Amino acid sequence: MLVTGGTFDKEYDEIRGELFFRNTHLPELLRQGRCALDLAVDELMMVDSLQMSDADRERIAAACADCPESRVVVTHGTDTMVETARVIAAHRLAKTVVLTGAMVPFAFGSSDGLFNLGSALSFVQVLPPGVYVAMNGRCFAWDDVRKNRSTGRFEPIA
Amino acid sequence: MLVTGGTFDKEYDEIRGELFFRNTHLPELLRQGRCALDLAVDELMMVDSLQMSDADRERIAAACADCPESRVVVTHGTDTMVETARVIAAHRLAKTVVLTGAMVPFAFGSSDGLFNLGSALSFVQVLPPGVYVAMNGRCFAWDDVRKNRSTGRFEPIA
Amino acid sequence: MLVTGGTFDKEYDEIRGELFFRNTHLPELLRQGRCALDLAVDELMMVDSLQMSDADRERIAAACADCPESRVVVTHGTDTMVETARVIAAHRLAKTVVLTGAMVPFAFGSSDGLFNLGSALSFVQVLPPGVYVAMNGRCFAWDDVRKNRSTGRFEPIA
Amino acid sequence: MLVTGGTFDKEYDEIRGELFFRNTHLPELLRQGRCALDLAVDELMMVDSLQMSDADRERIAAACADCPESRVVVTHGTDTMVETARVIAAHRLAKTVVLTGAMVPFAFGSSDGLFNLGSALSFVQVLPPGVYVAMNGRCFAWDDVRKNRSTGRFEPIA
Repeated sequence: MLVTGGTFDKEYDEIRGELFFRNTHLPELLRQGRCALDLAVDELMMVDSLQMSDADRERIAAACADCPESRVVVTHGTDTMVETARVIAAHRLAKTVVLTGAMVPFAFGSSDGLFNLGSALSFVQVLPPGVYVAMNGRCFAWDDVRKNRSTGRFEPIA
Repeated sequence: MLVTGGTFDKEYDEIRGELFFRNTHLPELLRQGRCALDLAVDELMMVDSLQMSDADRERIAAACADCPESRVVVTHGTDTMVETARVIAAHRLAKTVVLTGAMVPFAFGSSDGLFNLGSALSFVQVLPPGVYVAMNGRCFAWDDVRKNRSTGRFEPIA
Repeated sequence: MLVTGGTFDKEYDEIRGELFFRNTHLPELLRQGRCALDLAVDELMMVDSLQMSDADRERIAAACADCPESRVVVTHGTDTMVETARVIAAHRLAKTVVLTGAMVPFAFGSSDGLFNLGSALSFVQVLPPGVYVAMNGRCFAWDDVRKNRSTGRFEPIA
Repeated sequence: MLVTGGTFDKEYDEIRGELFFRNTHLPELLRQGRCALDLAVDELMMVDSLQMSDADRERIAAACADCPESRVVVTHGTDTMVETARVIAAHRLAKTVVLTGAMVPFAFGSSDGLFNLGSALSFVQVLPPGVYVAMNGRCFAWDDVRKNRSTGRFEPIA
């Protein structure tokens, strides 16, 4: 699992009244899900996907390529998840890579993060090599998905 | 989705200080997961799986057979989930059936229910026909899984 | 109870990734606290206390004066709670008025809102007429309290 | 603060599917409430108040008498809270003692524990010596309160 930040990991700064990043909540999520998969969590960066640079995306793609695993889940902000999926896909890796994220921070009461994580970790185990986006219980090929900014849902382009 | 009860749906009766069943939390879980799948939720029964009779298990198998869908998720208590899986498997349906449950009630703070639901709904979309158990982020064939009662984890028999 | 907004009632807008106000969570908080007090909740405004105008503060003071109750709790953003307390105090009402708020929105997992509400509703029942701020389990007279902006705690001035 | 157990501190045993006691959640509750009071937490026992013996109640009363503080909050199961209050009152201490509890375990999502704790800690600071029960946002003298077992609410006897 490659952690890159996104809403998933945002927290509330009670002194300044703002959202911010501290550490990833992934280990806590995996514990809550009683996840028994043998997996490594690598916190690659901790950024809002709207602030993500091209260099950041290349770094994520390189991490997917360089890790010994052949199945990789990337947690990512939802706003530019599809762009990063495209950059990873351009590397034509012989790996199954599934990107996922959350609409509501895990630190808040009713986050979709745990559901999406369960979903992404399941799809990544069974899908053939390729780059996918797992959101809203669905799984999309990287080149047939967009985030509908008015509904907040991911949907096929076609 | 066929709802049969289990820890998933247990609530705390604050008058009697006991756990009990009321209504299924499935629709709430699906909403929290921002699930966009087109699915029907059928509350078949609402029982503790330790109390489940053979007739109950046959009723679940019949519901899997009779529903128009070819992909079915069954929420079930974890204690006898494997037994029900065996009963469904005996019907040799040309369908993908995934059973899942929870170790901690959804109504409590740190339930694994949302994770397991995301997982089961994902596996059911991609696995070939058969009967499976999805727990702890893993998916098991119905005839190669048992619940380890001391750890609370599901594991392969072999 | 007079509701004026503040962190107490902020929510997370999952489409825009920002905090915002919708409706007050006060009735939900009172229900969760199993509060059996006979009280009226009046949503006066729904603003961030950093955005609160002098006219807003006068409106709050007028509402304290005009309501039939002699004991009033005001929920308020923490940043300018003390300023509003001063404006209410200038009206020299023969009423017990307790202001309270929250450092973390109730909609988030680990809010102090429920604790502060229990505290304010208790102090208001037993304290003599005057204007007070109830935060961090303590109760301060309006003219001997300030918010320490680095710790986020309220403390006596002297 | 004297901790005696009760629903307040119950947890869910995910292996056996039962409620049980482990450690008190009081420090966690105080932290969530951003409580800045200078107080000592003493975990006296960890029992269901239906299981509490006369000897247990005498031990609680003795702890109230023996501690150096003149203001004491006792967390207690709700079912026999009034009985313990009576035992403490028989000691005619020159102290303010407030008993409180919870209808729903803190470890569960929507507990009243934090509200009740904020309430009890506030009443104890301002009430004259005596023994009180703080529940449902109200405070009762020990000899004018009972738990209504059908509604789960505390109410005056008269």
